[in-house]
Amino acid sequence: MAELNITSVPGFMAGAIHCGIKASGKPDLAMLVSDRPSVGAAVFTTNKIVGAPVVIGRRHVHHGKILGCIVNSGCANVCTGKRGLADAVKMCRLTAENLSLRGINGETEDYLPFSTGIIGHYLPMQKVSDGISVLSKQIGSTFEHGEQFAQGILTTDTCTKQAATVFGIGANKITIAGACKGSGMIAPNMATMLAYIATDADVPRSLLRRAVRHTANRTFNCVTVDQHTSTSDAFVCIANGRAANPRMTPDSRLYQAFCDALLDVADSLARQIAADGEGATKLVTIEVTGAQYASEAKSAAMAIANSPLVKTAIHGGDPNWGRFVSAAGYSNVSMNVDRVRCWVGGFEVFGGGRPTGIDLAIVEAAMKKKHVNIRVDLGIGKESARIYTCDLSREYITINADYHT
Amino acid sequence: MAELNITSVPGFMAGAIHCGIKASGKPDLAMLVSDRPSVGAAVFTTNKIVGAPVVIGRRHVHHGKILGCIVNSGCANVCTGKRGLADAVKMCRLTAENLSLRGINGETEDYLPFSTGIIGHYLPMQKVSDGISVLSKQIGSTFEHGEQFAQGILTTDTCTKQAATVFGIGANKITIAGACKGSGMIAPNMATMLAYIATDADVPRSLLRRAVRHTANRTFNCVTVDQHTSTSDAFVCIANGRAANPRMTPDSRLYQAFCDALLDVADSLARQIAADGEGATKLVTIEVTGAQYASEAKSAAMAIANSPLVKTAIHGGDPNWGRFVSAAGYSNVSMNVDRVRCWVGGFEVFGGGRPTGIDLAIVEAAMKKKHVNIRVDLGIGKESARIYTCDLSREYITINADYHT
Repeated sequence: MAELNITSVPGFMAGAIHCGIKASGKPDLAMLVSDRPSVGAAVFTTNKIVGAPVVIGRRHVHHGKILGCIVNSGCANVCTGKRGLADAVKMCRLTAENLSLRGINGETEDYLPFSTGIIGHYLPMQKVSDGISVLSKQIGSTFEHGEQFAQGILTTDTCTKQAATVFGIGANKITIAGACKGSGMIAPNMATMLAYIATDADVPRSLLRRAVRHTANRTFNCVTVDQHTSTSDAFVCIANGRAANPRMTPDSRLYQAFCDALLDVADSLARQIAADGEGATKLVTIEVTGAQYASEAKSAAMAIANSPLVKTAIHGGDPNWGRFVSAAGYSNVSMNVDRVRCWVGGFEVFGGGRPTGIDLAIVEAAMKKKHVNIRVDLGIGKESARIYTCDLSREYITINADYHT
Repeated sequence: MAELNITSVPGFMAGAIHCGIKASGKPDLAMLVSDRPSVGAAVFTTNKIVGAPVVIGRRHVHHGKILGCIVNSGCANVCTGKRGLADAVKMCRLTAENLSLRGINGETEDYLPFSTGIIGHYLPMQKVSDGISVLSKQIGSTFEHGEQFAQGILTTDTCTKQAATVFGIGANKITIAGACKGSGMIAPNMATMLAYIATDADVPRSLLRRAVRHTANRTFNCVTVDQHTSTSDAFVCIANGRAANPRMTPDSRLYQAFCDALLDVADSLARQIAADGEGATKLVTIEVTGAQYASEAKSAAMAIANSPLVKTAIHGGDPNWGRFVSAAGYSNVSMNVDRVRCWVGGFEVFGGGRPTGIDLAIVEAAMKKKHVNIRVDLGIGKESARIYTCDLSREYITINADYHT
């Protein structure tokens, strides 16, 4: 997917600059814009304490038409009261005003604001205002502009996270491409990050909303780095209809193909978030099978994924499977204790109430890989769930104990 | 409380030796025995995956009479099937047989077995058997024996954890003393650790059970180090009646005084567990006030206490209060968002939806102390809860990534 990015989607422009929020001098203001009125759907954090951009974004996405997103990193504009709300609206208004000079005519409500970074600080609005003016002139649709956008939304991420696909049924070619950021305060539900997916599909708003919710539940809501559901974050998908495909209906093959492609792109982004969790050295997949309900499978998988004892064992490459099994045990889901089984890297280590007796040196070797798979079967039903997470390292502590307010 | 320990309680003997389970050569087998038939009450882990000693202990404590506890550290005897169950019973039988040679006549069922350490390994029963034989001859009632017991139950703890009190009403003097161990896999409910409290109070078994449950909920069940509820652990209180106090009734002043004293001892032990959590450099108290229900106050406090972002901020002495407030926000409890307030070390940092504007250098100084207090008021009711936890350091990672299976 490396040769495509978000500006590979026909009709989308993007870019990012450093406007002065981040002390590091890295890009901290990013913009994604459609050259024509589009439909959008978004899901936002479930945290009860939400940032001003979430309040405003929820309002604007309901208004119907959407033209683009204005994003800053380095300051989350959360816990900032009325002034924060006014600042979030102003980001949209300035974007609309400046882009109208480029012939993209829209209202304040046509844009969604996003902010990520530290909580409890006001945005430096002079810098943001000047930055929007500069950025509005610079955005474009080249590959480089897409890369800039992916850079501009990052916080403690060590790399950009992008994915794209092109699919078609018959003569219709549709492009879906996205970029997202982690990498701390990553936990479902939703919350967790900023993710942007653009597509030239012509998809009715109601079907786009359905696809976005379904996709979020199976991808971004299955990622946990530190179980800390953030106050800010969101997944938005914008469809500009430029592909001029036949009308999608809930049962059409084309809509199904669109949903599958969207899921693919989002799944790739979700895995990238987990793999680049703060301090992560490994991508970890936790599978729980044999559950009575899918929700219980997910609860058990989350309990395993969020246990610091599990995450440190994986970091150390230690086949200490008692931690995996016991985490499922305290997750308060139904299980048949005598039939619980556990696999590490595909090797069964526990079953029938006792160790399988496998040579743990083999299991240890499997745990040294960059991608570690843990599976626990609850022995009571047929439902399953899969969660993406990462290991817990000293580097996580360094990043988060030394992060400055 | 330093001049007393568990053998300060009249009629109790204790001790510990190294029987060969721990490679370190540290004490790994401990015994606590009453010289006369006593009543006991215990609460055990809520984990669905439980160790063999928990299965056997639950059975034995229901049998009525209790004489003592046999404890090993270094191997948890969990996920060990029928063989594990037989081993746990055998620990009790060997204890009964050996102690009868010292004139303490009891049955297998009069003893409770406890094991703490790694999951998924069988106990080295020859070593345990030989150890019980030696230990049964060595136990005694001196201060040194009490210290040995407190040492013998430890795993990754860096220090012993003991507390004691003597109280009286009129001519009646009652002693309550205990020892416990942490320090990883520490989370409610129950689970979390092994705690032993002995008393010479004459207290009916039904009232002892009530006091133990009440005490556990307010102390040991309010401690979290790493939210990983263990498979093994337990809090047991044994009362031998030697104080020959007047009969306690549910409403008697003496019973109330007993409950208060038990709570004091357990609270001290619980705080010691949090302060000596794996890798801990600080004791952290999380208070949630203004909640609609006490259970919601506890949920919110637990969410704050278990967030790695909160724990690392405290480790770094960083007054990044947005992490504290946002953790309450995702705990899924009722709150009045506009009235949420947050204090760090007694200083209000957030209120009315925005930062209070306090000089964060003052707050930072408060966070450098060995005991850090965080309070969040949910602004919606009158209920509250208090949780003990610790910070999250690189040392936690070192301990748990390098722990060997």
